[in-house]
Amino acid sequence: MKRFPDHCNIIIPGFKFAGSSAGIKKSGNNDLALVYSENPAVTAGMFTTNRIKAAPVRLAIKKISSQKAQAVIINSGNANACNGEKGMKDARAMTMMTAAELGIAPELVYVSSTGIIGKKLPLMSIKKALPGLVRKLSPSSLNQTASAIMTTDTFSKVSYRRLSIGGKRGIIAGIAKGAGMICPDMATMLCFLVTDITINRAALDSALREAANRSFNRLSVDNDMSTNDTVMILANGNLKNSPVTKRSRYFHTFKCALNEITYDLAGMIAEDGEGATKLIEVIVKGALSEADAEKIAISVSNSMLVKTAIYGRDPNWGRIMAAIGYAGVDVNEQRIDISLNNVKVVSKGTGTGKDLAARKILSNKKIIITIDLATGKETAKALTCDLTEKYIQINAHYST
Amino acid sequence: MKRFPDHCNIIIPGFKFAGSSAGIKKSGNNDLALVYSENPAVTAGMFTTNRIKAAPVRLAIKKISSQKAQAVIINSGNANACNGEKGMKDARAMTMMTAAELGIAPELVYVSSTGIIGKKLPLMSIKKALPGLVRKLSPSSLNQTASAIMTTDTFSKVSYRRLSIGGKRGIIAGIAKGAGMICPDMATMLCFLVTDITINRAALDSALREAANRSFNRLSVDNDMSTNDTVMILANGNLKNSPVTKRSRYFHTFKCALNEITYDLAGMIAEDGEGATKLIEVIVKGALSEADAEKIAISVSNSMLVKTAIYGRDPNWGRIMAAIGYAGVDVNEQRIDISLNNVKVVSKGTGTGKDLAARKILSNKKIIITIDLATGKETAKALTCDLTEKYIQINAHYST
Repeated sequence: MKRFPDHCNIIIPGFKFAGSSAGIKKSGNNDLALVYSENPAVTAGMFTTNRIKAAPVRLAIKKISSQKAQAVIINSGNANACNGEKGMKDARAMTMMTAAELGIAPELVYVSSTGIIGKKLPLMSIKKALPGLVRKLSPSSLNQTASAIMTTDTFSKVSYRRLSIGGKRGIIAGIAKGAGMICPDMATMLCFLVTDITINRAALDSALREAANRSFNRLSVDNDMSTNDTVMILANGNLKNSPVTKRSRYFHTFKCALNEITYDLAGMIAEDGEGATKLIEVIVKGALSEADAEKIAISVSNSMLVKTAIYGRDPNWGRIMAAIGYAGVDVNEQRIDISLNNVKVVSKGTGTGKDLAARKILSNKKIIITIDLATGKETAKALTCDLTEKYIQINAHYST
Repeated sequence: MKRFPDHCNIIIPGFKFAGSSAGIKKSGNNDLALVYSENPAVTAGMFTTNRIKAAPVRLAIKKISSQKAQAVIINSGNANACNGEKGMKDARAMTMMTAAELGIAPELVYVSSTGIIGKKLPLMSIKKALPGLVRKLSPSSLNQTASAIMTTDTFSKVSYRRLSIGGKRGIIAGIAKGAGMICPDMATMLCFLVTDITINRAALDSALREAANRSFNRLSVDNDMSTNDTVMILANGNLKNSPVTKRSRYFHTFKCALNEITYDLAGMIAEDGEGATKLIEVIVKGALSEADAEKIAISVSNSMLVKTAIYGRDPNWGRIMAAIGYAGVDVNEQRIDISLNNVKVVSKGTGTGKDLAARKILSNKKIIITIDLATGKETAKALTCDLTEKYIQINAHYST
């Protein structure tokens, strides 16, 4: 399945992209990707909160707050995690060789790895593939890069928005790969965003945090957090607009566009969850605080019983009620309404008896669970997918 | 499968048990159970922390700290949860009719329900079955009661220990039913313990809390917490030993026995998890605190990826490392050792290459994941089962 046709490749002024095969993946599919900015870009990043971090993540965390970025080199097929000191050495070497090939300072190069855990990075294969990769750099190859970072994804994930900043038309674009994990791989949620808009670091960082918290941090496929999760944004200022700051009137415009893109990408990741047949969106309304709404949305979207029920087209609202109840939020059971798409299955805490209509609606590809707590005005959304036998098969049987 | 043969029924002096069918379950299997003490017993209980609680749980919480118990009436096949005021009325009516039939005060009767959520309790069927149930009460029917509280369990769960208190031989026995949930049922972890040992309420309560925290609270099948979870203990003092208090020398003896019984029962529940083919025990050693060890044990035992890998006999230790890392505990990656049964797969944070031997060991029915953090001396254990296609089938496809 291709969601974003190759011929629709978009241009982000001043950025070039490439994807190629370094032979890391046994399949021979592209496994090396490069994001390159013609000039050093302001950057911000968010990384896995897992205490066990892959080597490239440790490198990136060290420099992201002080260094601009001009290139991100990404390999799939090997996570370079749990490799001890050797892993750090290899990540540094990968930084150096990419910088040398591009003729830029190593401080401006970021490395990202995803794939199998605990195996040495095939550094020589990467070195051999680098010159060809750099030659392939092209402004119209964003989708090629999106494909090269895939592991178990079944389609490449690209989203973008055009926006007006002080009368100038800028663009923000992003690519992502899924949170699915395949045996014996420990895959990763990766997202790389680029924009030609001029924005200062504080504003970029704040916008990225808000966007990631409202999308990737509310996304679950199997609740397992990888050692490699990375979200990065590069803003190269090519648009030459008057710089967006946190106090500028265009900060809100920028944030809205970024929020939409990351939510788009998170939705694609959920839809492409391993073995998934349905995209599930959980909307919690009427909460006393956004934090409360978020806790409940995540609790319901993480429930294996809710996910299997929706897979089986079973309007088993009792499981939704139970997951609301154990979210750790004070709720008033007698006020809760629950709808599955447009069918209200719970009114004021008890069943409406509309199980037949609900069962019918559950044959849809997208299921929206709307929970109204009726205690406040705050809201939050979460994204997930259904849980199927295929998830088990992918993660249990397809072992080496 | 029967783990505890009927003819092995044990006697707990002063207690009588019965199980029968009230026609609540469509299958016609026993669905009404009674635990009865000849005299009012000191009691303690722990109940679901889910904010949405079934009606009988709400009743029990109200009186458990002030009232003794002489009888517990348990129905399976209907959870009496999310039924609003009607649910509370029905739970109270079930209390009253049981008290009347037994000729005891309603304050001494506790009700427990498990099964389908959001359906009215068939009160008249229960009323009709009560006289026969009371007539069946017998000191040797513990196992019959254990069977009658089953929902999706494939075997009844009984455990007991005999212990010497001041030269007198007492006994503690317990029955439990599983945490599996079957569509459209919201089932429940229930455990009822009885003892003839004389013990005061404070000691009984403290012992029960420790035992449940180290067993049922470290047990996961699918991470979903029900609205009905209940653990209760009744101590009728028939042994006439000098009362065990928190400061008595036999308190430790009592606690050890109780811990063993609840851990036994939790193991049986894990082994009997829906679709499970393997029992998994996670042992965390070398932690700085028991709380740290517990967090990591629970994180690993909750990981869907670990559970599916073990099902698929894949020694994918990277998933175990990832689950250790996201437990929220500071760990030193370079010190971690991991063994699967007796095969060390990780030494000082990196793979040992013993994947073949590990793969072989994973054909065992019981898998022990031992994690040594090598930072302290504290330890904790958790219990779970593997995750299989059958779990999905049970919870998705077998809908009404």
